[in-house]
Amino acid sequence: MADQYAPPLKNGQPEFIPAIRWEEPPEGPVLVLLDQTRLPAEEVEWVCTDAPALVQAIQTLAVRGAPVLGIAGAYGVALAAVRGFDVDEAANALATARPTAVNLARGVERAREAYRKALEDGAGQDEAAAAALAEARALHREDAEAARLMAGYGLELLDELLTGGAHRILTHCNTGALVSGGEGTAFAVALEAHRAGRLRRLWVDETRPLLQGARLTAYEAARNDMPYTLLTDNAAGSLFAAGEVDAVLIGADRIAADGAVANKVGSYPLAVLARYHHVPFIVVAPLSTVDEDTPDGAAIEVEQRPGHEVTEFAAPQAAAGGEPGGGIPLAPLGTQAYNPAFDVTPPELVTAIVTEHGVVSPVTADALAELCARGRQEAGGVRKG
Amino acid sequence: MADQYAPPLKNGQPEFIPAIRWEEPPEGPVLVLLDQTRLPAEEVEWVCTDAPALVQAIQTLAVRGAPVLGIAGAYGVALAAVRGFDVDEAANALATARPTAVNLARGVERAREAYRKALEDGAGQDEAAAAALAEARALHREDAEAARLMAGYGLELLDELLTGGAHRILTHCNTGALVSGGEGTAFAVALEAHRAGRLRRLWVDETRPLLQGARLTAYEAARNDMPYTLLTDNAAGSLFAAGEVDAVLIGADRIAADGAVANKVGSYPLAVLARYHHVPFIVVAPLSTVDEDTPDGAAIEVEQRPGHEVTEFAAPQAAAGGEPGGGIPLAPLGTQAYNPAFDVTPPELVTAIVTEHGVVSPVTADALAELCARGRQEAGGVRKG
Repeated sequence: MADQYAPPLKNGQPEFIPAIRWEEPPEGPVLVLLDQTRLPAEEVEWVCTDAPALVQAIQTLAVRGAPVLGIAGAYGVALAAVRGFDVDEAANALATARPTAVNLARGVERAREAYRKALEDGAGQDEAAAAALAEARALHREDAEAARLMAGYGLELLDELLTGGAHRILTHCNTGALVSGGEGTAFAVALEAHRAGRLRRLWVDETRPLLQGARLTAYEAARNDMPYTLLTDNAAGSLFAAGEVDAVLIGADRIAADGAVANKVGSYPLAVLARYHHVPFIVVAPLSTVDEDTPDGAAIEVEQRPGHEVTEFAAPQAAAGGEPGGGIPLAPLGTQAYNPAFDVTPPELVTAIVTEHGVVSPVTADALAELCARGRQEAGGVRKG
Repeated sequence: MADQYAPPLKNGQPEFIPAIRWEEPPEGPVLVLLDQTRLPAEEVEWVCTDAPALVQAIQTLAVRGAPVLGIAGAYGVALAAVRGFDVDEAANALATARPTAVNLARGVERAREAYRKALEDGAGQDEAAAAALAEARALHREDAEAARLMAGYGLELLDELLTGGAHRILTHCNTGALVSGGEGTAFAVALEAHRAGRLRRLWVDETRPLLQGARLTAYEAARNDMPYTLLTDNAAGSLFAAGEVDAVLIGADRIAADGAVANKVGSYPLAVLARYHHVPFIVVAPLSTVDEDTPDGAAIEVEQRPGHEVTEFAAPQAAAGGEPGGGIPLAPLGTQAYNPAFDVTPPELVTAIVTEHGVVSPVTADALAELCARGRQEAGGVRKG
């Protein structure tokens, strides 16, 4: 097995392109995304001048991952406001662009509320737009801070749960800087462990069908010089059986009030394997991922995505060809596919949920409700303060 | 979801190209394989005129699947004998071409023994070569008959275990006519259920990294007009959770004396999921897959395959390009991968093993040994009779 890719350095540090940023060139404000569908082959930026472009970016997964979707949603509302589009129309389109991650709708609502409130308070259009933008920027900063806090709490938890000092962590999908205003959720914990010299191995599930693990997590792990190994999702069982996994760390797209966790499809089988092998299964997500209006896992709407994501291979470099996905066919013509984007892990299989306000373990509705209440209080305190 | 592919018919029947056949054109005898690496895009034949060509076909997976590897091994020895090559050299190279499936070495040994015995009995070179070929043909016929018997026993077992009458079967990798002298192992059971009007749905795991499910099982299911749906391996958990799987049916590459089953990587996670959801996990394999010299799962050598099968996508149609696998990169340059070809499921997770001599359930070393003894007796009876 070959050595890993050494990223190019800038002043001795890896040079990162942020997943999302607000820019104000002379032509007018824009939201710039790093197009995640083109990684790791190319670092291409996707420039949005209006909400429909952002909706398209969200639906094609050019930008994806629960926390950053919230940030994107907020900036999208600000973009509509600043450029003089209909703010409610933009907000409605953005909030429903994808159904599962609750963060998206929440980010949209925060910016829309700031805009509305400013207007109600007698502000003009420009001032209200500035208020929406300020709210988006605040959410962006808060998310970066939440990532920092989760990384710390997560590593503390690992050190508590695991003896031996050097952790072998299995992760699924992508939960790093690409999904975050900061360094991410589950990935940020692994990165914290790496920086503390306590990451023995990051096992990276490739995460079919769209290969966010192979394309994005491996990219982030390589850039951070972490010891990582890629595997097909179905090879994780062999690692568990061989005793090579100390903990599973994943993110979340929505957490129900009872602690059920919707996350990228393939998370639930890992939870079952982890339980069977007595390995901790840890979910790392900001409190904005918890939806107290969703009582349990059964109430979470799981997005069903097009079958061609499974029946065709869409190479970033492959010239778009025929119908319907334009990729290289993997299966006989006309093969139908079952392609849920997410699955739901019941709370009894989740060892702990790590948030920016602390850790819930064991995962119960009451403990989660209590943490949410504390989170609101602390956030309120900060905002008032 | 679109309708499934309707295969071209010949005289009202789907027209199949056999996985393997012996031919004797004027240029001399050859072994013709259907190149499984090119399916389903193209039906291309791989013609072997000597054992090294067959070794290459086996190692590149142009021909794969435990039962057909045994048949291929036997024909390979016959080919060497008939064409006047060194038979022992050919047999040794073939027997060790891949390490996990015991059938390969066994098929090789049967043909080599027939060749040796003929020579010992005073036969000339041509006559001994004919004996080797006759043995290969006998193995081919026996395997077809074993497939027919397993299909019957397997469907009987399903009807016993499951109420409701219409079965939703999840399968992994490819176990149909492409791996068999007949209609296969696990797939043959599903096909039998389909013909009996009792297959409600065949759930086809795509089977990363080489996609034998998407490419080969979907191809065979489509050609047999079966109701099938493709899914990524990691989406199986969602199906179990939704109660959409009545039974898991898989093949085997080697079964240890204690009943531990080595099969395509991803089988073990399905066994754990099946147990967690109280769903029968059924292994269908001819007795030649049982290796009484391998005491348990830990003693099974699992083939580790090159990382580029995971880090690159080798499209059948993609022009072979750079190094090392020549495929389209999926992960950053230099990413290392963990790529075991198989995993091992312990006997306590296997509901039943279906063979051509009957069913073992529960799976214990004693019950398996008894069936093997009966199998030897019956085979002896047949060969003597």
